[in-house]
Amino acid sequence: MTPLRPLIVTMGDPAGVGPEIIARAWSTLSDSAGSLAPFVVVGDAQVLKAHGQPVEAVLSPADATSVFGRAIPVLHHPAPAQVTPGMPDPANAVAVADWIERGVDLVLSGEGCGLVTAPIAKAPMYASGFRFPGHTEFIAELTADVPFSGTRGPVMMLTAKDLRACLVTIHVPIDQLPELVTGERVARVARVVHESMKRDFGIAAPRLAMAALNPHAGEGGAIGLQEVKVLRPAAEALRAEGLNITDPLPADTLFHEEARARYDAVVCLYHDQALIPVKTLDFWGGVNATLGLPIVRTSPDHGTGFDIAGKGVARADSFIAAVRLASEMASARAAR
Amino acid sequence: MTPLRPLIVTMGDPAGVGPEIIARAWSTLSDSAGSLAPFVVVGDAQVLKAHGQPVEAVLSPADATSVFGRAIPVLHHPAPAQVTPGMPDPANAVAVADWIERGVDLVLSGEGCGLVTAPIAKAPMYASGFRFPGHTEFIAELTADVPFSGTRGPVMMLTAKDLRACLVTIHVPIDQLPELVTGERVARVARVVHESMKRDFGIAAPRLAMAALNPHAGEGGAIGLQEVKVLRPAAEALRAEGLNITDPLPADTLFHEEARARYDAVVCLYHDQALIPVKTLDFWGGVNATLGLPIVRTSPDHGTGFDIAGKGVARADSFIAAVRLASEMASARAAR
Repeated sequence: MTPLRPLIVTMGDPAGVGPEIIARAWSTLSDSAGSLAPFVVVGDAQVLKAHGQPVEAVLSPADATSVFGRAIPVLHHPAPAQVTPGMPDPANAVAVADWIERGVDLVLSGEGCGLVTAPIAKAPMYASGFRFPGHTEFIAELTADVPFSGTRGPVMMLTAKDLRACLVTIHVPIDQLPELVTGERVARVARVVHESMKRDFGIAAPRLAMAALNPHAGEGGAIGLQEVKVLRPAAEALRAEGLNITDPLPADTLFHEEARARYDAVVCLYHDQALIPVKTLDFWGGVNATLGLPIVRTSPDHGTGFDIAGKGVARADSFIAAVRLASEMASARAAR
Repeated sequence: MTPLRPLIVTMGDPAGVGPEIIARAWSTLSDSAGSLAPFVVVGDAQVLKAHGQPVEAVLSPADATSVFGRAIPVLHHPAPAQVTPGMPDPANAVAVADWIERGVDLVLSGEGCGLVTAPIAKAPMYASGFRFPGHTEFIAELTADVPFSGTRGPVMMLTAKDLRACLVTIHVPIDQLPELVTGERVARVARVVHESMKRDFGIAAPRLAMAALNPHAGEGGAIGLQEVKVLRPAAEALRAEGLNITDPLPADTLFHEEARARYDAVVCLYHDQALIPVKTLDFWGGVNATLGLPIVRTSPDHGTGFDIAGKGVARADSFIAAVRLASEMASARAAR
């Protein structure tokens, strides 16, 4: 097996918990070389140094592999303004966006095998003119012109333990669900997930489950019509295309251990339908992965944590799980 | 401590899994005398006998206590039609309703300390003229004229391990939630839950959590307005009344172990918001309790299982947990 090229880690908001969870993740993972891809950080090396781990500047991802066992390799792009943990500064927002852009470029060029993004915050980014709802949309835009053989995302997947929950809608109010949960949208997400299970997880014949919108999957129309009118027809059409996907199933029957063993990924219709089981099963170790992009991309399932940044209490579980997942996905893509 | 009076167990649909899970529960619980209330079954003794445990007819709940250690005590009310497991017969539906009515009467008279109901099915009941959506509404009606000092329910509570999740809406389509989740309804449920925690669980100063309707609790109005307009004002008004209840919290942050330790019960706004975590945490052992009634009432969190009835494979976990919970609640009421 060829050793994996490094993952590219973007530092995220330098005043958030990003730098310290990166440092903590390195101290946990630095001796995993071989089984796991090493990583190289795109960000401010001085900020990273404040967290008690050895840091070494490198000039390219290729140099990172030999460094990773002894220090955190960094592609140093300084933050222009002084960084104070917990105090985000819009003066650094352009650099934060540049780090992400550079990270994406390094994966597209093949120097990195995948991207792991530490958290950014909306307010300081918006204040400096950033015009994307978040990381995911920004990365989708940066990769939009890159050829991609398959159904294009982005589709958000959240993982916890053996659960892979993929979202049809994300940050939308509950009262917009009936309008937004269309057969077309469900089908697109299911196709992206199906293809990603093969491409990114090496699953030859993916088994997908579909969650229902209404209690008891609508009980044949007695408790809501979306299952009968939208979701079951979508499932039937997808099966006719060759996907192995269930009819819409009562969402409360999908997330215990025996249920999870029956599918590789579940298509969920709204945020809390996926996030409640993910965070119930593993509150600290959930990972957010973006499916259907030309690059592998994961991130921790939490925000910048400005309230705890710099205090040494931020948990790195989710970030470490994000590195592991990106490494796994990159290996599966490389093996194709 | 006075020994507990018996719990009254209603057999439910005799063609469902009720008789066999009752028999299995007795075989697990018959030597728990002292720590747990014994139970007496209202139903058909012949049907119960088919499940391999000793059955003994008694004339009153008072006689059941001495019998419980050696046989299942039954107040024999025969089903008029032949019972075939898996084949519900509307000809038995009136008897099924009578058993419930008799069970309620026995608890109201003080002969029983609480009611545990095995599952009934809607179709055969409706076919014989039963006019209630289910057990809960029927029992609420049967107890409607009985004096009750406190806010009257019924409020449905689901339990799993240490989680107590109480429902503001139950079997309603998702698109009716914005209309049904009113401040008044939330406040009534919260009051019932608060009082029940004191009355039925012996918790002197109950701590309640309130789940939000929208993702991230609406993010200050950016993802839905119900938190700002309905839920936070309701929480403030409840706190002004003296309840210890949180503002609406993001539902995905409420159900892991550390979160559950922060409250005694959580007010959930819709079916799957409560049922997803309940069934993720304990798929087989969840219990449904009805709060805010003059009597203690619990039931297993599953249906009649006609497809598996009589095959000896039905799991009694949920029914056993329902008996334990009813015993605990009855003890707490008795201790006041």
